[in-house]
Amino acid sequence: MKALAAAARIVPVDGAAAAAARTRLDALTKPPGSLGRLEDLAVALCAIAGEVVARPYARKAILIGAGDHGVTAEGVSAFPADVTPQMVGAFLAGHAAINALARTVGADVVVANFGVRTALPVHPGLIDLCVARGTANFARGDAMTATDVDCALDAGAAAFEDLCARSRYDVVALGDMGIGNTTSAAAIVALLCGVNAKTVTGRGTGIDDERFGVKRRVVTEAVTRCAGGDWRRVAAGVGGYEIVGLAGAMLAAAARRIPVVLDGYIVAAAALLATRIAPAVAGYCIAAHRSQEPGHAVALRALGLVPLLDLDLRLGEGSGAALALPLVEAATRILAEMRTFAEAGVSEAISS
Amino acid sequence: MKALAAAARIVPVDGAAAAAARTRLDALTKPPGSLGRLEDLAVALCAIAGEVVARPYARKAILIGAGDHGVTAEGVSAFPADVTPQMVGAFLAGHAAINALARTVGADVVVANFGVRTALPVHPGLIDLCVARGTANFARGDAMTATDVDCALDAGAAAFEDLCARSRYDVVALGDMGIGNTTSAAAIVALLCGVNAKTVTGRGTGIDDERFGVKRRVVTEAVTRCAGGDWRRVAAGVGGYEIVGLAGAMLAAAARRIPVVLDGYIVAAAALLATRIAPAVAGYCIAAHRSQEPGHAVALRALGLVPLLDLDLRLGEGSGAALALPLVEAATRILAEMRTFAEAGVSEAISS
Repeated sequence: MKALAAAARIVPVDGAAAAAARTRLDALTKPPGSLGRLEDLAVALCAIAGEVVARPYARKAILIGAGDHGVTAEGVSAFPADVTPQMVGAFLAGHAAINALARTVGADVVVANFGVRTALPVHPGLIDLCVARGTANFARGDAMTATDVDCALDAGAAAFEDLCARSRYDVVALGDMGIGNTTSAAAIVALLCGVNAKTVTGRGTGIDDERFGVKRRVVTEAVTRCAGGDWRRVAAGVGGYEIVGLAGAMLAAAARRIPVVLDGYIVAAAALLATRIAPAVAGYCIAAHRSQEPGHAVALRALGLVPLLDLDLRLGEGSGAALALPLVEAATRILAEMRTFAEAGVSEAISS
Repeated sequence: MKALAAAARIVPVDGAAAAAARTRLDALTKPPGSLGRLEDLAVALCAIAGEVVARPYARKAILIGAGDHGVTAEGVSAFPADVTPQMVGAFLAGHAAINALARTVGADVVVANFGVRTALPVHPGLIDLCVARGTANFARGDAMTATDVDCALDAGAAAFEDLCARSRYDVVALGDMGIGNTTSAAAIVALLCGVNAKTVTGRGTGIDDERFGVKRRVVTEAVTRCAGGDWRRVAAGVGGYEIVGLAGAMLAAAARRIPVVLDGYIVAAAALLATRIAPAVAGYCIAAHRSQEPGHAVALRALGLVPLLDLDLRLGEGSGAALALPLVEAATRILAEMRTFAEAGVSEAISS
């Protein structure tokens, strides 16, 4: 398995590089610590790179994992399942929200198909590694087989390698598209964090009380069915292809020491799966934002990540991750382009 | 007075344009409201423009007001006053934090000198409208005369007009540079918000307990001396030139219906002065972030503004405002570049 081979190559992030970065930040022409979270982000990026970063991270990609969910048959989403391939079409045509945000931040948008229910047309912006045409309805049994889990994980690693072959990206934002996937993510988060299903099940795209009741019941029953399973059992039990694929992409990114910026709830669920395979992968993850989904904060806490933004987003597509990319570039430009007090001939603080 | 003439031209932001923006946002291919604060920002930008914005706000400037403070003689700052002109030199040379952030977000940096203590060299990035070589020490009497207040306000309006003559900027981030200016800002906020001086006096660039004690005493005494005064009396009493200048720039921006993005504590104090002259100016202001200074949240509440970012910044220079500029561009690109469900051929939500 390629993804597990990548996982075996992941090393913990570099504490010495982090310390060297902090020393440099404290010598730059600003009061120490005055750039707050941006300095912490700069330190984290140096720990990931294994050196004090000396160039701006300006080459950015947004990788959107897409997949469909059989559980939509239960009526857990406000939107019909057809919307998954329709929105992939919109991403490739360039007129969805994520495209507008990508243009704002100067990032390329690439879609990875891990399990969309219909065939997708060939397109230069699409990496088509479809494992199956959507998961089975996990209200009635497992979402996929254990073999499918391994295939989706490998497809994710392969998608990341394909992305890296396109350009030498400095940082990759990860996003998702899949009608019904907050139902799948809620079940994963409940199972992997050991919390009550109801506390991590939210209204997704904005469902009414009736659908919300169904969603909570479906998640609760699935969590009971899959309780105690390892990451592969959880993934097979509740899906989905894009979630497992994104976990595989994270393993490949960490093996290459490339930072990934996590979008919302779906991508956080994928990160939880990835950290069960290789705990060190969390060090390569940057949490972009805290979404409106109640389980997102639970997942981020379990990952040990503090989100950079809090903008009440609940769209997915990588939208929050895209908005965090300028912060990543800014953090590296601070390190690479600012001068020290000595270099700039600026007077230092008066010692007490 | 030019600044007061601008103030007289300011109209309240356009509620009909805001409503039309909300209608368009709800028709775009995303669940209604799923872009959270970004949608609220888009609505605010349309209210400012007086129409549904149909082009990206990609032309961005950062205007940094600079001035010196005689109160530094009391020992209220961690840095010597020489640092103000030194940092202006760094901004113009392009190697300060704000330059690294400006390159990240694609913004021009322009410095407006309203009261720096030393003469500054001619530079294309400098608008030199120096009213006086720094304020008087407000621990011993007024910081400036009422005439100086009016001159600084006009200089601010003139600096904004100069900026607009350079390029047709869509949005302007406002920042500050002035050693000692959190002392001045704390006094302004205490006086204009009617709160205790101690609750709005923070550690600025990071002062020790001894300097912090002096700073609190100086602010408390000045607030007692100037209590009950109108905006001109407050500005004359506690300064400073860059704060009054920034207030003048806001009046000119609002008269032109150009949104301004407010940086930290100093710029918020300037906005409080501006709203005392023309209350409608607050509608043209976007709060970029909440800084570490305790009085900043007090000032933002008084202005009725909710900050977009919370990154523990306390640098000034316009750093937080710069980081919010991509959100402004993103909000306008959402409006201008996304398609509606009907246009994109995407299925709408299932009605309950």
